Amino acid sequence: MYVKDIKWKKGIKVNELVEQMGSTGFQGVELKKAADVIIKMKKSGAKIYLTFTSNMVTSGLRGFFAQLIKLGMVDVIVTTVGGIEEDIMRSIGEKFTIGDFYSDDVELYEKGVNRVGNLFIKNESYAKFEDWMRPSLKKLYEQKKIWPVSEMLNEMGKTIEDENSILYQASKQNVPIFCPAITDGAFGFHLYLFQQDNEGFVVDVVKDFANILFSTSQDETKGLIALGGSISKHHALLACLLNGGIDYAVYLTTARSTSGSMSGATTKEAKSWGKIKDDSDAATVIGDVTITFPLIMSYVLDELGI
Amino acid sequence: MYVKDIKWKKGIKVNELVEQMGSTGFQGVELKKAADVIIKMKKSGAKIYLTFTSNMVTSGLRGFFAQLIKLGMVDVIVTTVGGIEEDIMRSIGEKFTIGDFYSDDVELYEKGVNRVGNLFIKNESYAKFEDWMRPSLKKLYEQKKIWPVSEMLNEMGKTIEDENSILYQASKQNVPIFCPAITDGAFGFHLYLFQQDNEGFVVDVVKDFANILFSTSQDETKGLIALGGSISKHHALLACLLNGGIDYAVYLTTARSTSGSMSGATTKEAKSWGKIKDDSDAATVIGDVTITFPLIMSYVLDELGI
Amino acid sequence: MYVKDIKWKKGIKVNELVEQMGSTGFQGVELKKAADVIIKMKKSGAKIYLTFTSNMVTSGLRGFFAQLIKLGMVDVIVTTVGGIEEDIMRSIGEKFTIGDFYSDDVELYEKGVNRVGNLFIKNESYAKFEDWMRPSLKKLYEQKKIWPVSEMLNEMGKTIEDENSILYQASKQNVPIFCPAITDGAFGFHLYLFQQDNEGFVVDVVKDFANILFSTSQDETKGLIALGGSISKHHALLACLLNGGIDYAVYLTTARSTSGSMSGATTKEAKSWGKIKDDSDAATVIGDVTITFPLIMSYVLDELGI
Amino acid sequence: MYVKDIKWKKGIKVNELVEQMGSTGFQGVELKKAADVIIKMKKSGAKIYLTFTSNMVTSGLRGFFAQLIKLGMVDVIVTTVGGIEEDIMRSIGEKFTIGDFYSDDVELYEKGVNRVGNLFIKNESYAKFEDWMRPSLKKLYEQKKIWPVSEMLNEMGKTIEDENSILYQASKQNVPIFCPAITDGAFGFHLYLFQQDNEGFVVDVVKDFANILFSTSQDETKGLIALGGSISKHHALLACLLNGGIDYAVYLTTARSTSGSMSGATTKEAKSWGKIKDDSDAATVIGDVTITFPLIMSYVLDELGI
Repeated sequence: MYVKDIKWKKGIKVNELVEQMGSTGFQGVELKKAADVIIKMKKSGAKIYLTFTSNMVTSGLRGFFAQLIKLGMVDVIVTTVGGIEEDIMRSIGEKFTIGDFYSDDVELYEKGVNRVGNLFIKNESYAKFEDWMRPSLKKLYEQKKIWPVSEMLNEMGKTIEDENSILYQASKQNVPIFCPAITDGAFGFHLYLFQQDNEGFVVDVVKDFANILFSTSQDETKGLIALGGSISKHHALLACLLNGGIDYAVYLTTARSTSGSMSGATTKEAKSWGKIKDDSDAATVIGDVTITFPLIMSYVLDELGI
Repeated sequence: MYVKDIKWKKGIKVNELVEQMGSTGFQGVELKKAADVIIKMKKSGAKIYLTFTSNMVTSGLRGFFAQLIKLGMVDVIVTTVGGIEEDIMRSIGEKFTIGDFYSDDVELYEKGVNRVGNLFIKNESYAKFEDWMRPSLKKLYEQKKIWPVSEMLNEMGKTIEDENSILYQASKQNVPIFCPAITDGAFGFHLYLFQQDNEGFVVDVVKDFANILFSTSQDETKGLIALGGSISKHHALLACLLNGGIDYAVYLTTARSTSGSMSGATTKEAKSWGKIKDDSDAATVIGDVTITFPLIMSYVLDELGI
Repeated sequence: MYVKDIKWKKGIKVNELVEQMGSTGFQGVELKKAADVIIKMKKSGAKIYLTFTSNMVTSGLRGFFAQLIKLGMVDVIVTTVGGIEEDIMRSIGEKFTIGDFYSDDVELYEKGVNRVGNLFIKNESYAKFEDWMRPSLKKLYEQKKIWPVSEMLNEMGKTIEDENSILYQASKQNVPIFCPAITDGAFGFHLYLFQQDNEGFVVDVVKDFANILFSTSQDETKGLIALGGSISKHHALLACLLNGGIDYAVYLTTARSTSGSMSGATTKEAKSWGKIKDDSDAATVIGDVTITFPLIMSYVLDELGI
Repeated sequence: MYVKDIKWKKGIKVNELVEQMGSTGFQGVELKKAADVIIKMKKSGAKIYLTFTSNMVTSGLRGFFAQLIKLGMVDVIVTTVGGIEEDIMRSIGEKFTIGDFYSDDVELYEKGVNRVGNLFIKNESYAKFEDWMRPSLKKLYEQKKIWPVSEMLNEMGKTIEDENSILYQASKQNVPIFCPAITDGAFGFHLYLFQQDNEGFVVDVVKDFANILFSTSQDETKGLIALGGSISKHHALLACLLNGGIDYAVYLTTARSTSGSMSGATTKEAKSWGKIKDDSDAATVIGDVTITFPLIMSYVLDELGI
């Protein structure tokens, strides 16, 4: 395929521009490949795993993830606990502010503002989250004492009333949310406080491993869309590996492969593990997901005629 | 400003999506800021410098650059010599192929194929370029013996017949193209061969420094759109610095600032030099220009109603 | 402080070269700053948290971590589960091979070889790990049914006989190892299999959150050495934040801060959260830890006269 | 080869640590490979090209480059003009200050301080440079009117009295310095001013292309050590390509290969061009050269017994 020149036209649509990127070089063409892999993934009837890290929930991708779940584009979610916390904060009315990468961090601290890149989260939002967690955990404990993580998150999602919430849509669409390091955040601190006063309260992560393991099977076609790296990406890969490997995989990341990290590991490397099948369709796009993911998915949704 | 969630809608336009990115975090919001800076730059009547490296010409951005010149969005260009060579190759019918980052490079070599990331350029294209250069230089030499680079490129552009050519559109729109390291490529080799046989033939780079220096003035409002780094970016900055500094600046790059390179230098750093004025509008977007630049400019062009 | 030129001399020692880097720019001087922060950290009697990701254990840093524990340079460890698995594999005689980033991954897969960057791990090593895990879990279960992660790892370390093992040295020196996502690896799969056959076997991650929370206190001086990112880094930061924040912090990473990820988050950003105190000593070094960490620690150990 | 664990010992030497890195993974082992390639390069009697960008001269590598020239480790240099300027500034007593990446750039500007990453250069240093340039150019013009760049730099080097100066050592050892974009800096501005008043003064870059072209031959064994990217790296590659390609190549860079830039281009990609021979020894190390280069060269010099 030859390189073709990009041409703008008045009122150009996203799918038209992404289509054109498919005839350019470097990450432009990789982005179009990623979109094509996701289209095939969906058309094949694959079970689709979407993984992302908490910072993407802080950014405006949160409601977009919720929309994708609602539209039936996602079957299983794996994320880090910060993403859960911030989805809940947003759903109870808290707002995050767009700030600056070069802020005066000591000044922010004094104002009770926490920085995530160029975004700000107020201490108040954590306080509101605490107010929500306590009664929520109490209700769960009244049901039973031992909770696998995904079952806990599913119950919580049922009580959220926000169309744009990941937890809400996931519960509604019966999409399990896995979070292998559930204690690694404010959520974990509240679990700890609750356990102090409520004997026998246990979060059963081993049982939840069984849940993600049986979220698919050897026979099922499997697809993965991994945004960023971390244990979210690794956990989905692991679950699929134990079920014979992934058929369609798309990685969007800013990390590089030269230090051997999971975040930077490519779809190519995954083939050596059998995580991704030899003959699978796979694409890796280097770039910030706040840009690449909306582009890719807008193309996919328009092409699928959803 | 609060973070808002991204929402897809059927047939979403590029300017609608970029508008939404303006309420997200990380590079999404920086991309929207960059678009806004360019809109202000244009509305202010600034002289606009566009700089890019040769790999971007290899990719499908070449015709897009030509289109932007044609639409009056660019007043001065600075680039590396590979970009000149490849614009000429394309304009005489040569094509570049979309390949793979993980190609077998020894095999490619044996086939006479040269790799630039995931793009391929054939040896033949260099041969065709050579065929074009010889008579072209001869004609120039008949006019005069001493040539500043931008004047040479302007003459060459006049002889190209291709709407999608950067050199063609630049000549037509009277947009000078500066190329401070004109010998650093096949072009340089042909200059050398020509000089062997044609006494007194000189490429006067010092005179061309005067040309870029007088391409603007202290009084003029100045804007810079720098894609990638290298001497292209630095040369435009230098010319503007000597004319009092830049009023509007947008940097799109994949390089990081932590090693002190020009490619990774931010608009913030440029302020210490007076390259960019203290109170200027400036934005830096980290990402591959094959993705970020078409997005930004499509938004800009649609918003400007061009 | 002025830049001084680096000078080589015959048989130059690591601490002499690092000393010289302290008078250079870019990451050289940041590396020296990081070494100085660790020296202050140690001299202040701080509780020292060392966090790393599993790929660093795959590389030859494993025995170096063990040595640092042995030398009393580390008080608490946080890592990902792959690091535990690979430490155990190595301690039972398995070996990892140095390979190539550009390997043929499908061929590797067919040979039962898994790639981590330019390193290879054989399937056999996972089989040997499995053989080790089963009896080990059985012995634990005989002691009690509910296990916080760090207590489990401490018991396991007692049974390892390898001076170069992280688990062995940690048990011996009474250094707790936290691993907030213990199920995210082969280890998790074996926990799951064991739970199938052994009723009431639970890994209590919430209880282990209490353990890391009480691993220090408000009054204690705290230091953090975070290698790479991921939940390891975040978990240590969180535990220290809940105890009033860190006094001395060193981050070594290859990730960049522009996408808002935890891996790329700087010590500067951490100040907005109160994770790192306003007036703390902190340094961030961008570079591969297989290079930067041995350099830094060799300087530190030599300067401390350990 | 198996991964071996790194072990610190009291007073460990640089060559001992680099030796150990050769048995680790990721960039550690690549660094050791790079050192081995340079040793072979030197032992083979190759003509050695060293390329670097100006920011590396700003950092403390300047005197180290001078030392390497003095020790006979370099035969040809290619750099950017900022590197020339700053070598001269340092040689006439100017000093650069170690600052901070997060400086207040507007404040720096007001103080007449220019930032390069975490380094500062005062406006005064540029004024002193100007004072040096004027008489220097005058003397050259008295000799002849038309100057190829490398001949000009060679003459200038003869007038410098500083053991630590790159230009001084290069002149003394008869090592040519090529600088394909000589006008891209304050140097260029002074060339322009001089040309205004001195008719017929020309810098002949085409003639200098001949000089670098004939700096080697098809028959000669050729080696390249490229620090960072930019035209410096490209120009050396081009000259060697036209002489049959490079036999030994080492790239040290922070740029990534995913955007098709010259800075990020790997030694692997270079093989497709014939820039590096198929069977050549080559290594690419990702990392900041202020750290990687002194490590590598200290090992090389100690092993060569220089």
